[in-house]
Amino acid sequence: MRKTLIATALLAGTAHAAEPIQVIEPAVIDNPEMVELGKKLFFEPRLSKSGFLSCNSCHNLSLGGVDILPTSIGHNWQEGPINAPTVLNAKYMLAQFWDGRAATLQEQAAGPIANPKEMALEHEIALDVLRSIPGYQVEFAEVFGDKGITLDTVTEAIATFEETLVTPNSRFDQYLNGDKHALTDNEKTGYQLFKDKGCAACHNGPAVGGTMYQKMGLMQPFVTDNPAQGRIEVTGKEQDRMVFKVPTLRNIELTYPYFHDGSTYDLKEAVIIMQRVQLGQELSDTEAEQITDFLKTLTGEQPQITLPILPPSAPGTPKPRPFTSGN
Amino acid sequence: MRKTLIATALLAGTAHAAEPIQVIEPAVIDNPEMVELGKKLFFEPRLSKSGFLSCNSCHNLSLGGVDILPTSIGHNWQEGPINAPTVLNAKYMLAQFWDGRAATLQEQAAGPIANPKEMALEHEIALDVLRSIPGYQVEFAEVFGDKGITLDTVTEAIATFEETLVTPNSRFDQYLNGDKHALTDNEKTGYQLFKDKGCAACHNGPAVGGTMYQKMGLMQPFVTDNPAQGRIEVTGKEQDRMVFKVPTLRNIELTYPYFHDGSTYDLKEAVIIMQRVQLGQELSDTEAEQITDFLKTLTGEQPQITLPILPPSAPGTPKPRPFTSGN
Repeated sequence: MRKTLIATALLAGTAHAAEPIQVIEPAVIDNPEMVELGKKLFFEPRLSKSGFLSCNSCHNLSLGGVDILPTSIGHNWQEGPINAPTVLNAKYMLAQFWDGRAATLQEQAAGPIANPKEMALEHEIALDVLRSIPGYQVEFAEVFGDKGITLDTVTEAIATFEETLVTPNSRFDQYLNGDKHALTDNEKTGYQLFKDKGCAACHNGPAVGGTMYQKMGLMQPFVTDNPAQGRIEVTGKEQDRMVFKVPTLRNIELTYPYFHDGSTYDLKEAVIIMQRVQLGQELSDTEAEQITDFLKTLTGEQPQITLPILPPSAPGTPKPRPFTSGN
Repeated sequence: MRKTLIATALLAGTAHAAEPIQVIEPAVIDNPEMVELGKKLFFEPRLSKSGFLSCNSCHNLSLGGVDILPTSIGHNWQEGPINAPTVLNAKYMLAQFWDGRAATLQEQAAGPIANPKEMALEHEIALDVLRSIPGYQVEFAEVFGDKGITLDTVTEAIATFEETLVTPNSRFDQYLNGDKHALTDNEKTGYQLFKDKGCAACHNGPAVGGTMYQKMGLMQPFVTDNPAQGRIEVTGKEQDRMVFKVPTLRNIELTYPYFHDGSTYDLKEAVIIMQRVQLGQELSDTEAEQITDFLKTLTGEQPQITLPILPPSAPGTPKPRPFTSGN
């Protein structure tokens, strides 16, 4: 899969050799049954201790794949530690989570289910729940044969669904594909500024981000109350303090509030702050406006999702525990 | 609208004069723009103080229009007072809420938004949020002309969407429509028992419920920890203590746990309890099984919902307050 992506990016690179951004290709679905199963699991609140939270709770596909909150709400209304990244175009990221601690979408998918501050359900209980549900028994058998319902098959299905969550055909992609009228002059100026001012040094590739890690506050400290320290928590290296994955700017119009701490809802303000703390430059109001206008052309076609109908529990299905404390 | 429903029910009654249950008709959508707007609002978490809860949180259209929890989770993880009734086929109910305190779907829709234990957002702020969002400004203008974004137009759109949430073509409806092979012999026996044992005295009409109020614990007290007292809270009359709207049995296979207190997840157990406390009779295990088998034939085609893409907030949109206490 990764090879295919790189090949696609290289091909796109051939067509637009000078451009730091490549087009988002429409999803190619070669395993629709697994995608459909993964979609069910993505919307499945019984994968949480409360029976109330699903992947879609914080990666809401009605809202650009995020919850449009500074930090998320987890089990028992706990405040999450960091802004929820979008699931849209996440397959283009070099790794998952802000600190890249999961190498793949599949590895990522296991995290929030068991995280006591998120869905808070031990994996073994989550699997017991799914295994108890006749509809899932049938569907996993159809998709995975005798592999059964395991953490591997569950997360493979979720990741396979998530790989379809791409947003092609934005106005900017139309422009990249040769339609020079797809952008206004103002938006083209914004794009030129985006390149000239250095934004594209980090925000590049098909997802306009997700290709590298970078220090937050490279030229000036980024002032925040958020305690996250970035990749140092993964690598243990001091040089990785406050180093985060560069987020995608695809659909950035939809994925407010911005930054890992969700500290601003205003895209133009976010652009000004980034230029200041990452590049040590002040943008004029007009420049910030033009870059913002360009960024809004990165909003692509949102995945059209038919809401899954989830199979009913059986009498023996482990019960949700929304209000129990402790275990 | 109510007249049309009654006429439909009467027509259905002509065709199946002896049957206490009438078929669910497919939704007739004569105002698709309003339905589409109402769908957005139904999935709109910005109608909650937290920005996290929507109508669909507790009336989840992936889960038979309920949250499959004993009682719901509201703002700040508050425990709700009563089991969330399904929104599916709710248009057939003589009134809304367990105690019938809202006469119409439109009146109901306003309740949970402002209920401090549910979505907890004052109506005026909810309207300010919607009015600040350019996408909603356009869409309300298209649907409602110069009526604007008001509690009336918001709830009219939500109710109009909810009126489309019907579940036609269950196997039982196929049977009612003349396909005598749509039910197994066992299920037919279960239906006969349902009528003979007196269940249909209260559970009748197209929704197999929702046509009347009835005392919970008519023949024997219904033992519960749930403090709800039913219609007495609406009428103030002692005779209405523990009197609730008879719930629909359509899609009952999906809408566990059962009763206004959500005290059992097991449909067969629920059938046995109801026969005991409402009709003063003990069912044999086989009878309970057969009635349960019949009830499962009431699962209809679930509404096929394309997840709405919600319009982005503007910088001036009032912010969600997920973790603030007090106001």
